[in-house]
Amino acid sequence: MIDGKRGFKCGNIIWHKASVDRQDRECINGHKSVVLWFTGLSNSGKSTIAHALEKRLFDMGCRTFVFDGDNVRHGLCSDLGFSMEDRRENIRRIGEMSRLFVESGMVAITAFISPFRAERGRVRQLVGPDSFIEVYCKCSLEVCEQRDVKGHYKRARMGDIKEFTGISSPYEEPESPEIVLETDHMCVETSVDRVLDFLVARKIIPAAEKHSSRMPGEALK
Amino acid sequence: MIDGKRGFKCGNIIWHKASVDRQDRECINGHKSVVLWFTGLSNSGKSTIAHALEKRLFDMGCRTFVFDGDNVRHGLCSDLGFSMEDRRENIRRIGEMSRLFVESGMVAITAFISPFRAERGRVRQLVGPDSFIEVYCKCSLEVCEQRDVKGHYKRARMGDIKEFTGISSPYEEPESPEIVLETDHMCVETSVDRVLDFLVARKIIPAAEKHSSRMPGEALK
Repeated sequence: MIDGKRGFKCGNIIWHKASVDRQDRECINGHKSVVLWFTGLSNSGKSTIAHALEKRLFDMGCRTFVFDGDNVRHGLCSDLGFSMEDRRENIRRIGEMSRLFVESGMVAITAFISPFRAERGRVRQLVGPDSFIEVYCKCSLEVCEQRDVKGHYKRARMGDIKEFTGISSPYEEPESPEIVLETDHMCVETSVDRVLDFLVARKIIPAAEKHSSRMPGEALK
Repeated sequence: MIDGKRGFKCGNIIWHKASVDRQDRECINGHKSVVLWFTGLSNSGKSTIAHALEKRLFDMGCRTFVFDGDNVRHGLCSDLGFSMEDRRENIRRIGEMSRLFVESGMVAITAFISPFRAERGRVRQLVGPDSFIEVYCKCSLEVCEQRDVKGHYKRARMGDIKEFTGISSPYEEPESPEIVLETDHMCVETSVDRVLDFLVARKIIPAAEKHSSRMPGEALK
């Protein structure tokens, strides 16, 4: 059958649409593709742990990429503000983009506060529950505020920043996240290990690779 | 220096943010990351050639992914209609997403009509001119209309579809595309070869790989 969608006739030859699917990509990459969805208060360690995890996965030969405020807020979501509606749309787009990265065979790591249960639930459905791993960076508000180098919490307490999660806008804790990292007392390295252990146990990355290229002192300065 | 952005103090150890950059990814992938931006009329062959190219690149061991209406319009851009403004926003988001895929080390292939020069120019600037390869699928309107299996052109001629590119909305031909594929008489395989030759000449993919896993009859049915 020839149609505009699936192929062309060229001379006497019919060309069909070639395809590469997610399974093909996972096969060549040597690992499954998933979304690791980090959630937690501002300064709970999401982005730092996400990047440390990315580095470790990369050193093991995994294809992975981190999305955080740095590369999304000024790009894909640059048209969005911080109203409730815009924050919802922000998470929706990040979810859709993660889905495409998963299709492309990558381990997509996202690091956004994403304070609302319903929105995280929507992304879980969108990506597919088997491919969505919720990683809760559990850290007391007190510790997050102590880490407030940028002064966001201070400004939120003074009312200069409106609807700031944890201060003037709720954070809804995950009810059954796949992974909980107690980041008020866990090291970055311990947190990364916890995630890697989970990925190995779920056969998302092969066990043998876990420690293959590990360089424990690498992130130390 | 310790701050919330770059690291944490854990006991007496300071953790700095790990990082993997585009160059690291290109190195492990064995090829450079670029956007191949296909543009042309509806039914000019963009999506078919894009997928055939993806298959060939994949068989060579390259990391690549195609974005087309199928995986974008119902997902990332599902909130957008077909007004001028929405079409512009559609291309902007695809551009931003391509930029992230390029950062992640992939050869991103996009297949959208993208009729306006200014918008394609904006994506070129966004992605970076060195990473943006415009592929013009040049095909006469007559031939595109003959391939009109879905009846879109017919409906556009009857006025049932408004602002249809080539009929009731302009298509602005690229002024200096990197690659021109004359798809009204070129085969899919020839078109793919032309793109691969370009990628080899520009040292985006290694020369030796070009024919390594080539299976010429593969797309034939």
